[in-house]
Amino acid sequence: MKAAVWHKQKDVRVEDVPEPPAPPKGQVKIEVARCGICGTDLHEYLGGPIYIPDSNPHPLTGARSPVILGHEMSGRIVEIGPDVKRLKVGDRVALCPIIGCMECEWCKSGLMGLCPRVAFLGISWHGGGFSRYVNVYEYMCYILPREVTYDVGALVEPFAATVRAVKKLKAKPEETAAIIGAGPVGLMALQAARIAGVKKVISVEPAAKRQELAEKCGAFAVIDPLKQDPVSEIKRLTGREGVDMVVECAGLDKTGILAGRIAQRTGRIVVMGVFERPAVLDYTDLVYGEKTLMGSMGGYGVFDDAVNMMAEGKFNGDILITRKISLDDIVEEGFKALIRHKEENVKILVSLE
Amino acid sequence: MKAAVWHKQKDVRVEDVPEPPAPPKGQVKIEVARCGICGTDLHEYLGGPIYIPDSNPHPLTGARSPVILGHEMSGRIVEIGPDVKRLKVGDRVALCPIIGCMECEWCKSGLMGLCPRVAFLGISWHGGGFSRYVNVYEYMCYILPREVTYDVGALVEPFAATVRAVKKLKAKPEETAAIIGAGPVGLMALQAARIAGVKKVISVEPAAKRQELAEKCGAFAVIDPLKQDPVSEIKRLTGREGVDMVVECAGLDKTGILAGRIAQRTGRIVVMGVFERPAVLDYTDLVYGEKTLMGSMGGYGVFDDAVNMMAEGKFNGDILITRKISLDDIVEEGFKALIRHKEENVKILVSLE
Repeated sequence: MKAAVWHKQKDVRVEDVPEPPAPPKGQVKIEVARCGICGTDLHEYLGGPIYIPDSNPHPLTGARSPVILGHEMSGRIVEIGPDVKRLKVGDRVALCPIIGCMECEWCKSGLMGLCPRVAFLGISWHGGGFSRYVNVYEYMCYILPREVTYDVGALVEPFAATVRAVKKLKAKPEETAAIIGAGPVGLMALQAARIAGVKKVISVEPAAKRQELAEKCGAFAVIDPLKQDPVSEIKRLTGREGVDMVVECAGLDKTGILAGRIAQRTGRIVVMGVFERPAVLDYTDLVYGEKTLMGSMGGYGVFDDAVNMMAEGKFNGDILITRKISLDDIVEEGFKALIRHKEENVKILVSLE
Repeated sequence: MKAAVWHKQKDVRVEDVPEPPAPPKGQVKIEVARCGICGTDLHEYLGGPIYIPDSNPHPLTGARSPVILGHEMSGRIVEIGPDVKRLKVGDRVALCPIIGCMECEWCKSGLMGLCPRVAFLGISWHGGGFSRYVNVYEYMCYILPREVTYDVGALVEPFAATVRAVKKLKAKPEETAAIIGAGPVGLMALQAARIAGVKKVISVEPAAKRQELAEKCGAFAVIDPLKQDPVSEIKRLTGREGVDMVVECAGLDKTGILAGRIAQRTGRIVVMGVFERPAVLDYTDLVYGEKTLMGSMGGYGVFDDAVNMMAEGKFNGDILITRKISLDDIVEEGFKALIRHKEENVKILVSLE
């Protein structure tokens, strides 16, 4: 079968690889329908290996480069391994890419993403979503109801991550929120906050196309940080010192400190952005404003919630899919398009059908 | 009466000022017994005006420089104003220096320290603890039981701030904690954590005298960050990736990021340190470790708890008082001694008796 294989930095090849064998105990074989390109994939392409095990095999899975990329996927179960109980052939599923050891304190307490030996589908696993077939553990699969298409099903993973982040904010409907960044994660966080009942969600984003999408995703207002000062603009929009809640989805040098500053006293800030290096924070503002800054990673634990929101029509996924491409075009029309025309593209899906 | 009056940067004068009048409605007159020199006083002396209203009168109190300094005080009530109900002449009290408007949402919800017009005794009030008499609101006074001396009573304010910060961590006894900095606040936070039931509290402090005090205050271990790497040393000491909880009491360029890094996955960090400028944070570590960083300011709401801990003999205040001086010596033996011999001094009390 064909697969997009990471060999080294800026060297991802679409090449023939062996199809996975019959799924071993506790696993199922999935025929991939769609797989989205994630920022993580792009980081591995441009600057990897970051999370890809390169010189040493992964301590939990034994996987190492070359690896098949892709972890935001939907598909259909075509074969069942021994001891699989919940799933059957033909089930349409979305995937949680997090693979835990299932033995440590974190896995046992349901915080699999914090497992010290954590592995990820499409990064440190023996397969990924950018290929026709992949074997995965049964626990990674979430059944997609008929109402959720494969296209939108491929968004379950990033959307669940934002649902989990927003859940940490314990939003009350009368409270206000700001989302920094309106890329795929920012736009999903915006929708997750709206679905959680927050009426006034303000988006902070410099790119025109993404600003438009933020409005379509239900933003109360959109601030262009290149043209307006977000701190004073948010004061004006809220009639207060800042918003009650912030979701940081940009991960840039200036966006961490901004997230703190646009939150009002006792404000809660959840950080989802991937920062390439340490960045500044206004600690004194945190102290005097008694603000709280939380990190959030992954959507495990709320996949069913995310799928239900999709099935109930609360989440608009189609609006975020700006392009669908074939596997053969993943480098030129996928990675390179996202790098060259970042502002034009939000979520690019690879169709494996 | 004599008082230590802040006129301008590096200009604090001990001079004659009028004694306060009979206390107005809701206020009492206090004969000050002891008043501690706080880092805030030192900052105002060295680099002020920071919080002292200088060019404009304070919006709530109308106070402006020159102001009488001093807010960590104990004393005796000598006169009662109209409508004072809870207190009587002769009561021995400690003071909460926070003055709120009592009308805003923050004051009404008990978060007086977050009042946008907040004022402070000895900073933006018509009097301070570095004088024989001062008028204050009844609600600022906390009765000291017989077991609590005036010396230790003058520590109620900073100790309550650490009790409140530690309370935010929701410590479980089996958890581990680290305190960054072993100055007055760090040593009080260390004791507050021990009193909260945390058995393993690790102190991180470079000064030898303060290291000794940390041990005497019940530290499980003391790390000298100039000689050892706190991150690897804490891993060794806990047998895990880090501590469950951190109290940051230093406010230096490198201590914010350190606080995050010595916390293990899902670790909680409370920041008390006053940072002179924004400093770096490892946001990615916060995200992947799902850590939480909280700011905490002041001890309002837990003064009675702090006083009770003192009355029950759980808190060792005397060990922190490294010097007692008279008001006349406050500049030379107080401020200047703290600047020149920071490592030798922890808490310097001014005795007004």
